[in-house]
Amino acid sequence: METHGETQDGATGSIGDWATCSADPGYRAAVLDLLGALAYGELSAFERLAEDAKLAPGLADKAALARMACAEFQHYQRLHDRLAEVGADPQEAMRPFVEPLELFHRMTAPSDWLEGLVKAYVGDAIATDFYREVAVRLDDDTRDLVLGVMSDTGHAQFAVDKVRQAIEADPRSGGRLALWGRRLMGEALSQAQRVVAERDALSNLLVGGSVQGFDLVEVGKMFNRITEAHTRRMAALGLAS
Amino acid sequence: METHGETQDGATGSIGDWATCSADPGYRAAVLDLLGALAYGELSAFERLAEDAKLAPGLADKAALARMACAEFQHYQRLHDRLAEVGADPQEAMRPFVEPLELFHRMTAPSDWLEGLVKAYVGDAIATDFYREVAVRLDDDTRDLVLGVMSDTGHAQFAVDKVRQAIEADPRSGGRLALWGRRLMGEALSQAQRVVAERDALSNLLVGGSVQGFDLVEVGKMFNRITEAHTRRMAALGLAS
Repeated sequence: METHGETQDGATGSIGDWATCSADPGYRAAVLDLLGALAYGELSAFERLAEDAKLAPGLADKAALARMACAEFQHYQRLHDRLAEVGADPQEAMRPFVEPLELFHRMTAPSDWLEGLVKAYVGDAIATDFYREVAVRLDDDTRDLVLGVMSDTGHAQFAVDKVRQAIEADPRSGGRLALWGRRLMGEALSQAQRVVAERDALSNLLVGGSVQGFDLVEVGKMFNRITEAHTRRMAALGLAS
Repeated sequence: METHGETQDGATGSIGDWATCSADPGYRAAVLDLLGALAYGELSAFERLAEDAKLAPGLADKAALARMACAEFQHYQRLHDRLAEVGADPQEAMRPFVEPLELFHRMTAPSDWLEGLVKAYVGDAIATDFYREVAVRLDDDTRDLVLGVMSDTGHAQFAVDKVRQAIEADPRSGGRLALWGRRLMGEALSQAQRVVAERDALSNLLVGGSVQGFDLVEVGKMFNRITEAHTRRMAALGLAS
């Protein structure tokens, strides 16, 4: 996964720590939403990777996927514990994100091992881009946590290696996987836009903390940046996006 | 899970460490078989628990199952690393046990959350009984490892609590789950007997190291002890076995 440079608006300053920032109820609500979405995303990633492990062509690949699934679960646990620590109910915080994520997964059920790998790679990368975009708007404590659980679980390189090998062995599979990558990005954007439209506090955080308004142009730009990064990643994988 | 008393024949002495014992090629082959079976069993337990997590009625239960799945995976990793450490190919060592275990799982696919819990509980307990029976015949290093990975992952108590609650809430479910428990035990014995019949070195270890012969009576007695323990556990769960 590529490393990102400075954020879009060059913001690097601190807005303060959690104790200070969370005095604003709108900010607190937004962060609980964010941690809830992230926590459910990790639990869901655990489930999908464990599911993909069943499709693995061999025991070593199966174990590699299981290991990544457990790394995601450790991330889930940290987010869960943080939600509990700041006095939130982790289940409540996750609940609004269950349906959009499950819908995404139902619409994009991989039909084989390679589709599963591309999905996990692309999904992981989109999520990482998204949370890095958001991280710059967060208090120091929450930012450290978010960037910590975004740390590489080794999945990206594993997926890239396996997919490249598969395309070399059978160049025709590239066309099918390129189509698959486009479908994944389309469904991800569609669910993300739904979440943004439904969760006011989270949306306000995304557009720079302007609690009074919800700037669709700014959110659109963010989604464009994420789509561009996706295009570059698909190319690195040897796939046209 | 109940704690076991002394082993059937009161054996408590050491037969030596791995370095000494593994000089016997028959012993070495038997232990590689055993670690391979145990490693694949743990990887398979990871997969089943992750699968059961999908059936969980709520997010807290889902996370509890995922946590147990990861504990099983840690056990897998220790066994895998030990196989590599003693110069064996972990994949090769696991391979003979893939088919019997997958067949067992295909014959006993749980149809709901409760059946999944009973299966995980019963399966775990039978495996623990079996490996404790075997542990007394092992060198000190292998015994420590086997008993270590048999340590409680918290699954047993979780399953007992949930199943008891379910039977209290709906006493009729007890009959269905009792039938289910009998079917699980039957399939487990059938697959275990198949493995014992096919793996000579492992069988010799099971019947007390008499490398020249394969004592069916002794193996039968061991299976009887495991069945009796199963009966007691099912009763503790409120189920007739």
